[in-house]
Amino acid sequence: MENLTHFLTQKATNLRIHSLVSTSEAGSGHPTTCLSAADIVSALFFHAMRYEPSDAQHPNNDRFILSKGHAAPLLYAAYAEAGIIETDALLTLRQIDSILEGHPTPRFDWTEVATGSLGQGLSLGLGMALNGKYLDKSDYRVYVLLGDGEIAEGSVWEAAALASHYSLNNLIGIVDVNALGQSQRTMYAFDIETYCRRFEAFGWNSIGIDGHDFDDILPALKQAKASTDKPTMIVAKTLKGKGVSALENADNWHGKAVPKGEELDKALAELGPLTDDKPQIASPTSVNTDSRRGFQTRPCEPPAYQPDEEVATRGGYGTGLAKLGAANPNVVALDGDTKNSTYAEQFMERYPERYFEMFIAEQNLVGAGIGLAKRRKIPFASTFAAFLSRAYDQVRMSAISQANIKYVGSHCGVSIGEDGPSQMGLEDIAMFRAIPGAVVLYPSDAVAAERLVAEAAAYEGIVYIRTSRPQTPILYPNEEQFPIGGSKVVRESENDSVTVAAAGVTLHEALKAHDALRDEGIHIRILDIYSVKPIDAAALRKAAAETNGTLVTAEDHYSEGGLGDAVLNAVATEGIHVHKLAVTGMPRSGKPEELLERHGISANAIVRKIKEIL
Amino acid sequence: MENLTHFLTQKATNLRIHSLVSTSEAGSGHPTTCLSAADIVSALFFHAMRYEPSDAQHPNNDRFILSKGHAAPLLYAAYAEAGIIETDALLTLRQIDSILEGHPTPRFDWTEVATGSLGQGLSLGLGMALNGKYLDKSDYRVYVLLGDGEIAEGSVWEAAALASHYSLNNLIGIVDVNALGQSQRTMYAFDIETYCRRFEAFGWNSIGIDGHDFDDILPALKQAKASTDKPTMIVAKTLKGKGVSALENADNWHGKAVPKGEELDKALAELGPLTDDKPQIASPTSVNTDSRRGFQTRPCEPPAYQPDEEVATRGGYGTGLAKLGAANPNVVALDGDTKNSTYAEQFMERYPERYFEMFIAEQNLVGAGIGLAKRRKIPFASTFAAFLSRAYDQVRMSAISQANIKYVGSHCGVSIGEDGPSQMGLEDIAMFRAIPGAVVLYPSDAVAAERLVAEAAAYEGIVYIRTSRPQTPILYPNEEQFPIGGSKVVRESENDSVTVAAAGVTLHEALKAHDALRDEGIHIRILDIYSVKPIDAAALRKAAAETNGTLVTAEDHYSEGGLGDAVLNAVATEGIHVHKLAVTGMPRSGKPEELLERHGISANAIVRKIKEIL
Repeated sequence: MENLTHFLTQKATNLRIHSLVSTSEAGSGHPTTCLSAADIVSALFFHAMRYEPSDAQHPNNDRFILSKGHAAPLLYAAYAEAGIIETDALLTLRQIDSILEGHPTPRFDWTEVATGSLGQGLSLGLGMALNGKYLDKSDYRVYVLLGDGEIAEGSVWEAAALASHYSLNNLIGIVDVNALGQSQRTMYAFDIETYCRRFEAFGWNSIGIDGHDFDDILPALKQAKASTDKPTMIVAKTLKGKGVSALENADNWHGKAVPKGEELDKALAELGPLTDDKPQIASPTSVNTDSRRGFQTRPCEPPAYQPDEEVATRGGYGTGLAKLGAANPNVVALDGDTKNSTYAEQFMERYPERYFEMFIAEQNLVGAGIGLAKRRKIPFASTFAAFLSRAYDQVRMSAISQANIKYVGSHCGVSIGEDGPSQMGLEDIAMFRAIPGAVVLYPSDAVAAERLVAEAAAYEGIVYIRTSRPQTPILYPNEEQFPIGGSKVVRESENDSVTVAAAGVTLHEALKAHDALRDEGIHIRILDIYSVKPIDAAALRKAAAETNGTLVTAEDHYSEGGLGDAVLNAVATEGIHVHKLAVTGMPRSGKPEELLERHGISANAIVRKIKEIL
Repeated sequence: MENLTHFLTQKATNLRIHSLVSTSEAGSGHPTTCLSAADIVSALFFHAMRYEPSDAQHPNNDRFILSKGHAAPLLYAAYAEAGIIETDALLTLRQIDSILEGHPTPRFDWTEVATGSLGQGLSLGLGMALNGKYLDKSDYRVYVLLGDGEIAEGSVWEAAALASHYSLNNLIGIVDVNALGQSQRTMYAFDIETYCRRFEAFGWNSIGIDGHDFDDILPALKQAKASTDKPTMIVAKTLKGKGVSALENADNWHGKAVPKGEELDKALAELGPLTDDKPQIASPTSVNTDSRRGFQTRPCEPPAYQPDEEVATRGGYGTGLAKLGAANPNVVALDGDTKNSTYAEQFMERYPERYFEMFIAEQNLVGAGIGLAKRRKIPFASTFAAFLSRAYDQVRMSAISQANIKYVGSHCGVSIGEDGPSQMGLEDIAMFRAIPGAVVLYPSDAVAAERLVAEAAAYEGIVYIRTSRPQTPILYPNEEQFPIGGSKVVRESENDSVTVAAAGVTLHEALKAHDALRDEGIHIRILDIYSVKPIDAAALRKAAAETNGTLVTAEDHYSEGGLGDAVLNAVATEGIHVHKLAVTGMPRSGKPEELLERHGISANAIVRKIKEIL
């Protein structure tokens, strides 16, 4: 124990030196938050954690999540001391071609999940812990290092409640209580007891310790690992800037590097010399999981609708997801107590062991989904489209995490009717279009919905599927295919004078408009834009060229950022005239058809617009 | 007491009858959640609360927030029983021209804040309680009725922590623990003790009661009102559907009306007859606050920059906000532990009594801001633009609440540099453009930043101000005005061949491009789009008409939903060619200028694009 403490102390000194030097070299960063957590990280990386240094993706590696992502230099220092990266590489910190970014991203392959937006690490860890305990049945543990400031984030408490609900004894958190936020003292300064009491009330073991004393740290980790039924939170009192007198517990050092030269030299002199003992890193257990099987799939059972049926696309989603569950054993589903509305319950009923109820906590719904995705599952996370806005920061971070996750938002638009604006997803397309690399799908019938579920699973990356509440007619034969990036011409003639591009309920309105106009001798072309991103620009340009260079778009979404804007962008440089019909102003409760009319996206509104143009 | 209990019991029966009848008439809604809370609401509205029935906006009325917004029919029933609305009006529930919407909105003037997205009520109440205790110094109390399912939302715990931190004894919550969510049992069913323990750990008084027993309810409310230093949470065990045997504690009745006819008749028969005793409603204390003074302002001290200065627009914001504080006593500021980066600290230093630190809890930052706004303050809520994504659901709801609130996001775009993508606001314009009625402002120099702060305060409604991290040259004289909806021509000649529309750092890049091209004999016009929404469509069309029908946009924002899309929409029907330069792909850490180059929004990129077009 004495030898171990001596060794870990030396390693912690090394971590502090690397953190100071690399940030000073970069000229920016957060060295003081690295110094507060250095002893904890030393204990974790060089004693408590089991991992295979040659294999970042080893399925039984203990996982480590740096929820306080601004301590990235400490993380990189730990991997350098573990022999995983070269010590010299630390000097590339924050440079444009370095994988060692200012906040961790998976460009560095030991960073499984991106952090830097605070308060998200525990949800990510929850997803990984759910996978370990219930899916892979692996004995890996998930360690999450949190800052004290981020404990104010509600997302931490969403994850805390779910982790104890799911008895995740394989989830271990450590709060680095250095009492200093970015701009001032935290709410609770060094009140370790308050943090402990809160986690205990949320069903966790909690252990208050001195985060600079290995005689506290090591027994706490041992105790946490011994838990059989509960997650454990270790609450560690530390000093920001620990080890350097000018920085220790000092204000105004949050996001500042120590200037190279005299100041840095003085700090380094206080820390003492680097030592180069190699750590003995405990190995993970040998592979006993099938998480490396990859995505072995067989084709989904095809849709089986009658041509005269009326089915909501959310129903098609539920049916499609249940079929996908049979076709792909890596598919899992999560929902936020809306499964009887999104129809995720169809999956749950068939595959209860692969369904995780996340209750009314959308941030954690997404965060846990990301954690599952990073352990090679394909999560479908569903709730009302409106409520995905609750997790937009997590969605944004899922792209930085390069997560293979699928989001499903039901009850889009004013067509939900009487429940009113709080329940209407009217900005969801805008949200997801602005996520780099995300695919945005918007089925107009249940055949398309089922097919797009399978397409989403086959696509490696973020996919958003938007579903509607109302029942609508089946438009397509069961064998129709819907590749990502495509579109469908659903009405055309040689005399079409304008093209209408739509999806969802407004496509059905456009079809009614088509028939009404045809009776008056006006012919229009109709495109189903089931893939909003990527959008079928070629089809739009072709249709526009054949219909007087004129497009009309109609969508049950706010005017900004939705389907109409996707169309506009596809033809922006072409000098094509685009007329958008979309929801403007604040909707209210009412019947769906009344609201489509009032907001100018009904068949009548489309007819009026076309007559106005012609 | 016995008489009182009898009276309140009768009133509760009336509330139950109205809730059933109005939802049955509407054919949709959530009657069972009304029945569980009817006794609590009876005790609040007809005994505990003090309000002036003739004056919804009375500054000393106790405030009531229905966090579980789907119990709206119960709320309306209470106002009917209080004599505030006609009982007949309840039958208009959910109709398109009724102010009694499916979830409460301020179209009904007793609904100060919209609810329906769960878990937000406590933050709204916190804002109102901060106002009562610290600003208006009114003795009103704020009552928030929560459902048990929504306690899973992290936002509840953000508000809980802040409420005890600010010793808000005037904030009283009641959790209606009916144990049933929408799709299944809640995590804790009837475990009242767990809820109590959690709120206690978060610094609240908590009182567990039987929510159908006035001998429990009334003493609990009395005790809560007597608190001198802490907020109080009353945790009430109830039965969903209480009073109707077919509904009581039954599954699958969450969002369903009882069908009219036999089923409704049977339910009503069980409840017994309506009674018509009039309640004695306690009056609020007489006006002793100045919250009705309106927005008495004097002009802001003008900007005072030197022409050769370099100042970040976030700095201009801080300076402008501090000046606004002097000009308008209703202005308040909130920040989420980033005040030394957003420069909200300049306001805090001058007006500490009007500054509220919300720590790292963005959902509550926005929710509390809405609460303050609804009590006639003008809140400026600031954090990094990226982290406003954490509160997008609250922002969305602030529009439904018709809140007069200002959001400020600093550190937009890749130009923040080395901190990397998690810290870069790249979807913020898309977010705020999609909010109905919201104004989106994007200053390019500190003069504009200061002026736009004053414009934002003068505008009644939601305004978003986007500020940048880098220092940039002063472009405008100190006396320049920046009306909402305007734009500035910053470079023009008679020979301009193309117009570049930009704002923020890319405007400065465009100016460099202008000079480089001029040296090659190519002339371009440059527009400063400081008002992204509403956008100056006339100026864009005029400029395009004078420059070959060609526009180039350049923005430090993702390609989707930003400034370029705002421009595209302004000219969509005109057949104008629009070429967008914006951030595509996932950025990484690097120097600001390297990132502008890499993402194709630098001066060089603008020059290249223009040469490609010409």
